[in-house]
Amino acid sequence: MYTIGVDLGGTNIAIGLCDESLNIIDKGSVPTLANRDGELIVRDMANLASELIKRNGLTVGDVASVGIATPGTANSKTGVVEYANNLPFLNFPIAEIFKKYLPVEKVLIANDANAAALGEALAGAAKGTDNSVMITLGTGVGGGVIINGRIFDGGVNCAGAELGHIVIQAGGRQCSCGRRGCWEAYSSATGLSNMTKEKMTELKIKGVPSLLFDEAEREGKTSARTAFSAMKRGDKHGAEVVDEYIKYLAEGITNIINIFQPEILTIGGGVCNEKEYLTKPLIEIVEREQYTRTNPNKTKIVTAVLGNDAGIIGAAGLK
Amino acid sequence: MYTIGVDLGGTNIAIGLCDESLNIIDKGSVPTLANRDGELIVRDMANLASELIKRNGLTVGDVASVGIATPGTANSKTGVVEYANNLPFLNFPIAEIFKKYLPVEKVLIANDANAAALGEALAGAAKGTDNSVMITLGTGVGGGVIINGRIFDGGVNCAGAELGHIVIQAGGRQCSCGRRGCWEAYSSATGLSNMTKEKMTELKIKGVPSLLFDEAEREGKTSARTAFSAMKRGDKHGAEVVDEYIKYLAEGITNIINIFQPEILTIGGGVCNEKEYLTKPLIEIVEREQYTRTNPNKTKIVTAVLGNDAGIIGAAGLK
Repeated sequence: MYTIGVDLGGTNIAIGLCDESLNIIDKGSVPTLANRDGELIVRDMANLASELIKRNGLTVGDVASVGIATPGTANSKTGVVEYANNLPFLNFPIAEIFKKYLPVEKVLIANDANAAALGEALAGAAKGTDNSVMITLGTGVGGGVIINGRIFDGGVNCAGAELGHIVIQAGGRQCSCGRRGCWEAYSSATGLSNMTKEKMTELKIKGVPSLLFDEAEREGKTSARTAFSAMKRGDKHGAEVVDEYIKYLAEGITNIINIFQPEILTIGGGVCNEKEYLTKPLIEIVEREQYTRTNPNKTKIVTAVLGNDAGIIGAAGLK
Repeated sequence: MYTIGVDLGGTNIAIGLCDESLNIIDKGSVPTLANRDGELIVRDMANLASELIKRNGLTVGDVASVGIATPGTANSKTGVVEYANNLPFLNFPIAEIFKKYLPVEKVLIANDANAAALGEALAGAAKGTDNSVMITLGTGVGGGVIINGRIFDGGVNCAGAELGHIVIQAGGRQCSCGRRGCWEAYSSATGLSNMTKEKMTELKIKGVPSLLFDEAEREGKTSARTAFSAMKRGDKHGAEVVDEYIKYLAEGITNIINIFQPEILTIGGGVCNEKEYLTKPLIEIVEREQYTRTNPNKTKIVTAVLGNDAGIIGAAGLK
């Protein structure tokens, strides 16, 4: 039997046909065109899935399940997307509509960050574990928690594990969620870029030279890469920003370990491209700070390996 | 069939014999005498359990299980207490030893804060829910998380849900765990008492009068009650301390809701004796700050109802 994983994004719909070991044996994508009726989005999704089935010599009967990873609040029990910020979904019965266009046995849904965490747990960096957490450092800080091999999405609201919205600095930086001091406001790529800009403003006022300016000019903007790039060239101010960023990142990750004690914590998203420049100092702090620091079974901290396929694979692995 | 719940404390061992609805039909207690060999503690525990069985006209065969709620790290899979701070337990096979003295069918163990959370979930403030969290505001901040009707104690280390050790103020107050800014350092009874003492020192230096001094004198010490008592008599400085305390408490509780989205969050421990003086302003902040504030399914925040029996009942309800 095969399964199909759909990763529904604001820009593209990516679909993979997977074998029983969750290898993607074929994949394709179509534009989401998010500003249209939701049903049309699902129709295109079903059509692409159907095409993948046909061009691999299979029939709908060979597909055990289709999983859909969607932004927003996905009710896995009802198959309804209750709300999604960037898509025209409000109490939208996506699973039922999908079945109308492609009569597969089973359509399952999950939030996209949760699906990515499941993907890494089933076939990626956390493979072989039953309990893992994935955090994604991107525009925000996404979180997905796997407990006993299954996505944990909270007791009510299907909106659990909003790990980016744990306050780590009461009264601190303004977060998009309305609170102040959320982890996301510090540890997202956006947070890093903001810290870098603030440092540069401070240096500019004082008239202090720094390779941060050089890097920003070279890239055409100040981004989450600027401070790391300057630091790698020996810039002291770049190193200060990176240290500050990693200090806050470690606060949040230590919190998550104290809460969940996962076997593996996987870090995904753009910032993890900095590899050991990020993870080495990070792990040093977290090992020192965690509640169970004297215990031999420490949570392993690793970077994600599936990249953009994590959502597809997690969706295909939904049960 | 009956079950027995043991609540093992640093001072006393409290044991209850429960019916199938988890009503305590008889109970008793013996001193722990923590400074002796662990086996002797377990022997006394088994003797008291045996006495309860006999004096209710039952036999060991009428007891489906004995549950032991213990401080420290309880490995529920192996029945071993891996470590307990105030008891002579280091990789101590408490379940096996108990069976030696009283040959019951099944001996199960859990951390005491987790057992109390299960007690409130099975027969107390969170009865009828599958997903709840209990926090206890005492010397520290204890946490117990119930997911799908069972205790969640983490992926590894059996030490999950250390909710008191979520940092809410990076670089803030020193916590006993070694980190700075843990929720426990602010929201425990100890934290409240410390905030009160600091306010009084500040007032003393400035020569400002306050009912805080009067209340502390009346009680013979400055405690977690001082600020609330002064506030109830109209004292502005007492109210300032209480406001500050509730602000931090709300940060931690909002974090927990964003992480777990429980149906009910139960607050136990001495501070919850302040009832609506505590809960009313607290709920106001949490409702406003939580990520799913627009969602109708909000977590209910309630005070615990089982008091000291929560541990016994939770232990008796272990499965």
